Amino acid sequence: MQHTSLVTGGAGFIGSHVARQLLKLNHQVIILDDLSGGFKENIPEGCIFIQGSITDVDLVNAIFEKYNFDYVYHLAAYAAEGLSHFIRRFNYQNNLIGSVNLINASVNHNIKCFIFTSSIAVYGTQDLPLKESQKPQPEDPYGIAKYAVEMDLENAHKMFGLDYIIFRPHNVYGPGQNIGDKYRNVVGIFMNQILKGEPLTIFGDGEQTRAFTYIDDVAPYIAGSFDLLNKTDTSAPLSGREAIFNIGSDSEITVKKLALEIGKAMQKEAQITHLDQREEVVHAYSDHSHFNRVFNPKPSTSLAEGLAKTVAWVKKHGARESSTFKNIEIQKNLPKSWQ
Amino acid sequence: MQHTSLVTGGAGFIGSHVARQLLKLNHQVIILDDLSGGFKENIPEGCIFIQGSITDVDLVNAIFEKYNFDYVYHLAAYAAEGLSHFIRRFNYQNNLIGSVNLINASVNHNIKCFIFTSSIAVYGTQDLPLKESQKPQPEDPYGIAKYAVEMDLENAHKMFGLDYIIFRPHNVYGPGQNIGDKYRNVVGIFMNQILKGEPLTIFGDGEQTRAFTYIDDVAPYIAGSFDLLNKTDTSAPLSGREAIFNIGSDSEITVKKLALEIGKAMQKEAQITHLDQREEVVHAYSDHSHFNRVFNPKPSTSLAEGLAKTVAWVKKHGARESSTFKNIEIQKNLPKSWQ
Ligand SMILES: NC(=O)c1ccc[n+]([C@@H]2O[C@H](COP(=O)([O-])OP(=O)(O)OC[C@H]3O[C@@H](n4cnc5c(N)ncnc54)[C@H](O)[C@@H]3O)[C@@H](O)[C@H]2O)c1
Ligand SMILES: NC(=O)c1ccc[n+]([C@@H]2O[C@H](COP(=O)([O-])OP(=O)(O)OC[C@H]3O[C@@H](n4cnc5c(N)ncnc54)[C@H](O)[C@@H]3O)[C@@H](O)[C@H]2O)c1
Repeated sequence: MQHTSLVTGGAGFIGSHVARQLLKLNHQVIILDDLSGGFKENIPEGCIFIQGSITDVDLVNAIFEKYNFDYVYHLAAYAAEGLSHFIRRFNYQNNLIGSVNLINASVNHNIKCFIFTSSIAVYGTQDLPLKESQKPQPEDPYGIAKYAVEMDLENAHKMFGLDYIIFRPHNVYGPGQNIGDKYRNVVGIFMNQILKGEPLTIFGDGEQTRAFTYIDDVAPYIAGSFDLLNKTDTSAPLSGREAIFNIGSDSEITVKKLALEIGKAMQKEAQITHLDQREEVVHAYSDHSHFNRVFNPKPSTSLAEGLAKTVAWVKKHGARESSTFKNIEIQKNLPKSWQ
Repeated sequence: MQHTSLVTGGAGFIGSHVARQLLKLNHQVIILDDLSGGFKENIPEGCIFIQGSITDVDLVNAIFEKYNFDYVYHLAAYAAEGLSHFIRRFNYQNNLIGSVNLINASVNHNIKCFIFTSSIAVYGTQDLPLKESQKPQPEDPYGIAKYAVEMDLENAHKMFGLDYIIFRPHNVYGPGQNIGDKYRNVVGIFMNQILKGEPLTIFGDGEQTRAFTYIDDVAPYIAGSFDLLNKTDTSAPLSGREAIFNIGSDSEITVKKLALEIGKAMQKEAQITHLDQREEVVHAYSDHSHFNRVFNPKPSTSLAEGLAKTVAWVKKHGARESSTFKNIEIQKNLPKSWQ
């Protein structure tokens, strides 16, 4: 029996990889994406593409009416964490209300499982490594919206039996990534800057650490998770908080070191400019033992290998002009480079 | 110097009392209310009334532009906790996005303090009594939206220096309450049912407990809190989590007992019908030591006295037809009495 899956944000970076994996798993894949941050070229051949927004409730309901979805992979979001302070309303409208439209429709159409990409942004500053058992305390509107969606899913499960799986990825990079957005994705930003012969911009001293994760260590597991809750061969059936997974690499490095590695991978010496420090979590890496136990993943891709593959794609693809977000809601304290 | 204050939801129950107190404190009071749950008759004489919604961002910005607010008292919300499961999108749109419009404008116009009525709904099921030091884990969309606003305020404080005070009231009753809304306010619902000669409807066995709070034990303190953060005569200056206050009565009773008390106050024997139990927190009462220490309140009103005053008002006011909420988003598991 063929499954039918909706992938929101399927023209985006992670979503397009998830869609490709789902095709391999023989799903019929419908993509809903408004192309605000994604690209038509990203959409894998074989998917049905609908251009539109998850915030358009009539469109969402019509799509659910037309396709009898078994699974919903909800990846559409504007994921500019640092910018979210300054575009609070847009952030909640796009990332929360849009998600709630999908949750409502999923309840009303009795889908089998709702798979959601949250973020480690929900944790905020906490003891490291970040564990699923820690109570979220997000520190920016992006993380607050993600956490609200997580809580709403938990509630929809309790009230209406909607099954869900939540992934909390961090700092994913790879081919297909939007490297033209100056507000996010430091790997893409650095590569774009090198391509354009500009110095690499680092907020503060660059000693903040992140664990960068190659896309192939993420997308196949997200795609393959759809029937996890039915599986009897895992040690124990999942429920509630157990359906939440940190996902990503275990090896963190400083942003400064990353800049050097990217210079190496692109065979250019990296010039670095330090910008004013901004309000952000300094260290963030997470514990993946829950993910490892349940998914038993393949060994992960090394940073050198992942960067090499990404560079190959980026070189073919070329530099991108960074778009400027138009409707900044609060100008106060906006980093200079974003004005 | 006269202060200028915005009171959203000022045509509603608590908001109109807060507005009245502010007039006494010599504030110029501007009320923004869309009358979705409030009444023009509630608006105290001397206030400027603007009919419109907090979700209308252009209107909100125009009002902030026109009046140079010192303080924002944000009480507008649709506070039907149990119904919020079934009107998720409306709930987040009205109660979260509406709030964010006000927070954005408050940052952009450098107001002095943002006073927000959250709810004990943010706590969910936890060890009793509920304390401000407990991490919220809301269990319904209403509570999730309130908690998201709280987190957004904390973030806006950190990023932009916006001062705020959060009150978490519970089960407030008194003159001016909307007794015509079948989805909420059990005190009002019971009184309305008695006036109409109908039996009192109780979800489940009626053994769930709540601590009912008379309006005069709440409104004056909310109104008077505006310069709390500047006060040097309190034992210690407030910051962060300390600016969050449980507020309300300490004596909880069962809903069944409440029904009998209301019958007594209205001098009618109360007939009771039990409806199916619904998904709700069974016991909820909170610790008010933080509030007591900082506000040093007057002795609180007894239930008998509060009910007597409320009944006097309700009798003058008459029964109300219960309005039916039109855009139910999810019909599944909707309690029969709400269909
Ligand atoms: N990349 C990461 O490191 C990372 C980390 C944690 C979480 N996430 C989450 O994973 C998901 C995918 O992120 P990504 O890195 O692929 O970003 P991306 O920008 O490449 O993909 C997001 C896609 O969503 C689309 N989109 C945005 N708003 C939409 C709307 N209202 N309606 C329809 N489509 C809309 C965009 O056009 C884009 O194609 C997001 O939910 C993001 O929050 C990503
Ligand atoms: N009454 C309680 O026991 C209680 C308990 C906890 C929290 N609260 C909170 O206190 C506040 C006041 O509650 P209340 O009991 O007075 O309710 P209420 O319904 O009497 O007052 C709310 C007012 O807000 C207005 N309103 C709603 N949506 C609006 C919008 N989008 N734009 C403009 N105005 C809008 C309504 O017309 C109404 O006048 C709410 O925020 C509520 O969540 C109340």
